[in-house]
Amino acid sequence: MRTDDGLAPTIFPMLFESVAIVGVGLIGGSIGLAAKARGLARQVVGIGRNPATLTRAIHAGAIDSSTTDLAGVSTCDLVVFCSPVDCIAEQALAAAAYARPGTTFTDAGSTKANIVRDLDAALPKHVHFVGGHPLAGSEKQGVEYSRADLFSGRTCVLTPTPKTSIAALERVHLFWSAIGSDVRRMSPEEHDLALATTSHMPHFVAALLAAQLPEAWQPLAATGFRDATRIAAGDPGLWSAIARENTLALVHTMDRFAEQLKELRDAVLAQSTDDLVRILTDAKKVRDALGS
Amino acid sequence: MRTDDGLAPTIFPMLFESVAIVGVGLIGGSIGLAAKARGLARQVVGIGRNPATLTRAIHAGAIDSSTTDLAGVSTCDLVVFCSPVDCIAEQALAAAAYARPGTTFTDAGSTKANIVRDLDAALPKHVHFVGGHPLAGSEKQGVEYSRADLFSGRTCVLTPTPKTSIAALERVHLFWSAIGSDVRRMSPEEHDLALATTSHMPHFVAALLAAQLPEAWQPLAATGFRDATRIAAGDPGLWSAIARENTLALVHTMDRFAEQLKELRDAVLAQSTDDLVRILTDAKKVRDALGS
Repeated sequence: MRTDDGLAPTIFPMLFESVAIVGVGLIGGSIGLAAKARGLARQVVGIGRNPATLTRAIHAGAIDSSTTDLAGVSTCDLVVFCSPVDCIAEQALAAAAYARPGTTFTDAGSTKANIVRDLDAALPKHVHFVGGHPLAGSEKQGVEYSRADLFSGRTCVLTPTPKTSIAALERVHLFWSAIGSDVRRMSPEEHDLALATTSHMPHFVAALLAAQLPEAWQPLAATGFRDATRIAAGDPGLWSAIARENTLALVHTMDRFAEQLKELRDAVLAQSTDDLVRILTDAKKVRDALGS
Repeated sequence: MRTDDGLAPTIFPMLFESVAIVGVGLIGGSIGLAAKARGLARQVVGIGRNPATLTRAIHAGAIDSSTTDLAGVSTCDLVVFCSPVDCIAEQALAAAAYARPGTTFTDAGSTKANIVRDLDAALPKHVHFVGGHPLAGSEKQGVEYSRADLFSGRTCVLTPTPKTSIAALERVHLFWSAIGSDVRRMSPEEHDLALATTSHMPHFVAALLAAQLPEAWQPLAATGFRDATRIAAGDPGLWSAIARENTLALVHTMDRFAEQLKELRDAVLAQSTDDLVRILTDAKKVRDALGS
């Protein structure tokens, strides 16, 4: 049975009959586990290039079946792209050729403006794309680290545009809410500018801090250094792709950071207690507001 | 009974008869707890300006008795200065007037070159100073957070100079080893340059990252941002004092960091995958070598 708007009917409590996850790593695997744990999909299909990874995902209980062929989306009413950010738009365009009318596409990419612009421009009308970004993750990659509760209590950003289907947006919103995420909506551009500050630049700064540590001084790196550089253990390929997808927002944010670093450096050199205490107090207020 | 070199005899397993801790916060309190837990001192005297803090330290079991008067060092054979770095040299010089001949002075300050130079130059010969820095701590300040195991498995740096008494150095070394620390020796100058990289600059960088977060984007600050900025919750007064005590090493380290930030920024703008992956891979190797 199909409704006249082409969407497959929702059988309560199943939001979706069959969900495809393209790219079954930490994020994709955790979406599969969460969807199954919450009863949001009758069936979860994993799609990826590497058969060994897909087998591990089945063993982890993250997916029910798998295929290395994007044609696997043909049986699904929701497709979640969890691949590296520079692959998502291309894969979604390729998968659209196999998708049934009314299929909802969404993604979990850390950058949004390029992906959403490309898909708004080129995706055929019979599939409905909603840009998404669940703000969870870890420096640990791989489906082995997947957890059904990875997104519980975390923010998930959806980035609708005037071209976004309201029905698809509501269903994706409901999906993430049911998984336990706090769903927020903003434009793809605001998302990318915000994430440059909250995620991308901190990652690159952590990498620079880590890279400056000579081996002889490793015993002098205590908890503070370890915390401040933990994200530098992330996958270099994924992060260089993020930089290429969010270039202008990241450069803008790095330039602002460099200006403030210069101001702080001058205050250190001038031994200006007033300036140092002011800068550190402003920062402490922000950090204290975040909680642990 | 006193030995002819003026040192009080060590009664095994007591390394020291009576230890004074000047400045009973997180570090001083934890030294007191650790010394008592390991049976390294028969008596721990807390010295500080604030009677309420000293009372809390007694309740926490960190000290046995307290006084607000530096003359309290007169009954002690080891005095550990745990005050802010810009107070240590002045307090040690004032306390020396009350100290018995042969008393060992050491400290827990995060900077060493200025303190060691001042005390090498001005401390009377009847007390023996050994510069020290246990690399432990927390963004949480205050004696309430003290733990007997705060220093277990952590590095403690001692910074002897040609003027340092070998006997005092060995006793302070033994004290920290018995507390469970991994004791390393280096010059005060090398310590300060290393700590600018492993602690001081990471702190200021974390503060800049935190300060850049507008309130509206707080929900977008996930685990990575929280880890990277955790140390920005530290005490602004303590950290501005550290910057004033370690000005040249910190400025030098910040300038190197700024150059590398510029290089990275240019690689981002050029969308140079090779450069980005190289920089991020070098950083990941260093961070992976540190462990969690």
